Amino acid sequence: MYENVTVVGATGAVGRIALKLLAERNFPFKTIKFLSSARSAGSKITFKGQTYTVEEMRPESFQAGDLVIASTPDEAAKEFCPWAVERGAVVVDESGYWRMNPKVPLVIPEVNPEAVDKHEGIISSPNCSTTQMVVAIKPLHDAARVKRVVVSTYQATSGAGVAGQDDLDKGTRAAIENAAYKYQTFKHPIAFNLIPQIGSPKHEGYTSEEMKMVWETQKIMGDDSIQVCPTCVRVPVTNCHSESILVETEKKLTAAQARELFTSFPGITVIDDLPAGAYPMPKECDGHDDVFIGRIREDISSPAGIAFWCVSDNLRKGAATNAVQIAELLIRRKPVARV
Amino acid sequence: MYENVTVVGATGAVGRIALKLLAERNFPFKTIKFLSSARSAGSKITFKGQTYTVEEMRPESFQAGDLVIASTPDEAAKEFCPWAVERGAVVVDESGYWRMNPKVPLVIPEVNPEAVDKHEGIISSPNCSTTQMVVAIKPLHDAARVKRVVVSTYQATSGAGVAGQDDLDKGTRAAIENAAYKYQTFKHPIAFNLIPQIGSPKHEGYTSEEMKMVWETQKIMGDDSIQVCPTCVRVPVTNCHSESILVETEKKLTAAQARELFTSFPGITVIDDLPAGAYPMPKECDGHDDVFIGRIREDISSPAGIAFWCVSDNLRKGAATNAVQIAELLIRRKPVARV
Repeated sequence: MYENVTVVGATGAVGRIALKLLAERNFPFKTIKFLSSARSAGSKITFKGQTYTVEEMRPESFQAGDLVIASTPDEAAKEFCPWAVERGAVVVDESGYWRMNPKVPLVIPEVNPEAVDKHEGIISSPNCSTTQMVVAIKPLHDAARVKRVVVSTYQATSGAGVAGQDDLDKGTRAAIENAAYKYQTFKHPIAFNLIPQIGSPKHEGYTSEEMKMVWETQKIMGDDSIQVCPTCVRVPVTNCHSESILVETEKKLTAAQARELFTSFPGITVIDDLPAGAYPMPKECDGHDDVFIGRIREDISSPAGIAFWCVSDNLRKGAATNAVQIAELLIRRKPVARV
Repeated sequence: MYENVTVVGATGAVGRIALKLLAERNFPFKTIKFLSSARSAGSKITFKGQTYTVEEMRPESFQAGDLVIASTPDEAAKEFCPWAVERGAVVVDESGYWRMNPKVPLVIPEVNPEAVDKHEGIISSPNCSTTQMVVAIKPLHDAARVKRVVVSTYQATSGAGVAGQDDLDKGTRAAIENAAYKYQTFKHPIAFNLIPQIGSPKHEGYTSEEMKMVWETQKIMGDDSIQVCPTCVRVPVTNCHSESILVETEKKLTAAQARELFTSFPGITVIDDLPAGAYPMPKECDGHDDVFIGRIREDISSPAGIAFWCVSDNLRKGAATNAVQIAELLIRRKPVARV
């Protein structure tokens, strides 16, 4: 079980990081193969010194007991995940398509590891902006019960894939030369600009990205009473999402208590010394797997709240790292009978 | 009274815009002169087709009845404002130094015009990030009483002056070429990065910029019960500050009511059509005098709240425009006896 590993979407922005992680973490496997849509099939991938040819994904690409780590657009995940499940493979899926399906566990290993046991062939990894926020609020929730979260995001262009990063790079070069550039991925110029929309209109004036931060948080935390008011904004940063988070808790926490709770939680690194100018910033968190937290302070506008600043590599903990951690968790825990 | 206009700090980022505005708005004056510190004295300024030499500011530069519009660092304002006041001039001051002084009115003409009448020689214009937020919350306050504001800012480098804009430009060019660049104004790289600190540590983990948004808001609104939780972040945008704002009100407002209140308020332009991808963005608000509002929606995390996105040209409404508007207001209203 799980000795044969299949990586789907290895040529994308997240897939490339997933490959690095599988090598870095010495992920156990007997065989490994790489699948993609017809468009990328045939391209070559080097993994641990060997060259592999990416194969086109078909129903028969999947076999019983395979461990599939997938990073594809929603539409692809909708199609191929049932192929894998029908044949008895288990998919760790990074797309948004299956996340809110009641039969699919939505897992962050530091937060709700037990949820993986209930899978029926698909385990979803949450949206990047949700994952880092939920890792951050979990220790506060355990200690003081989180009632409400107000979050404003500062999201990097890598969240829109390789093409998004490319758009920022080319758009910035053009802006500096006062030249024209037609953006491919973004609806509006992103160089030296901000776009206060990520995803499409979804619910009462909130975007799909924003509602992921509401619904996925409630599902992962297993608590629908947690209220979230999100604003998601694209910023001209290449990689790493940042979030300004205000958490209201049932029980009052001091800043010192919150700092201690963050510090002792796995997967969180605290950088918090304002007088020394020390706090997490995207450039410094790039390439790291942790969720970084700083600017920890008591909310001065409510009786029991903690405000803080949270940065994480959205391609790593926000996607690839979390998926690989789910796969590792799956291997560590006793395989469960499939329903 | 007020026929002799003195512009202090005309060579700075805000001063340059103030000059443009005085010309554009055909600001009334009989004589005009330009003052600066010794460092910039002697430089030439062209205003309405005439060339002026910037003079070094001294106590005797000011005379009774002069109208002074000043944009200088706090330390300069601390020194020269008393010189002007002692000699009977009236200063509209954009620095932070006098704002919280109980004898100094802190004025946004659309919000608290009556406050100018109580001046004793100095009238302060608020901090840029405060001004656009207070313009935005005022119509909601009048209709439904604002109890609390949670705000995260996305502040442009022009807020740190000409040198700040220059740092972003040079830092970005260097980053693109993978070259080194030593930042002059910012403590950390700002190109493709975010700095979650503006100002210095001030109060319980909040920065001076953040506390301006708390204390100045309460003073302008004349209501110390308004609670504000701010997070101020520098972003790689050249000009225009953006803010993600959540307002909790005593009386419930619908999104439609809030939109109508914003639309009818002077100085606010609403751009709000998410399905069409229409909302304010820094690039488009640059060079305009209004406060722009979009993404208006009901807070889904509290019983009575409005969330919205607010962008304004920080050198204009956030500084120069507001100061010139205060000066215009001063001229319109009957001069008051000096205490």
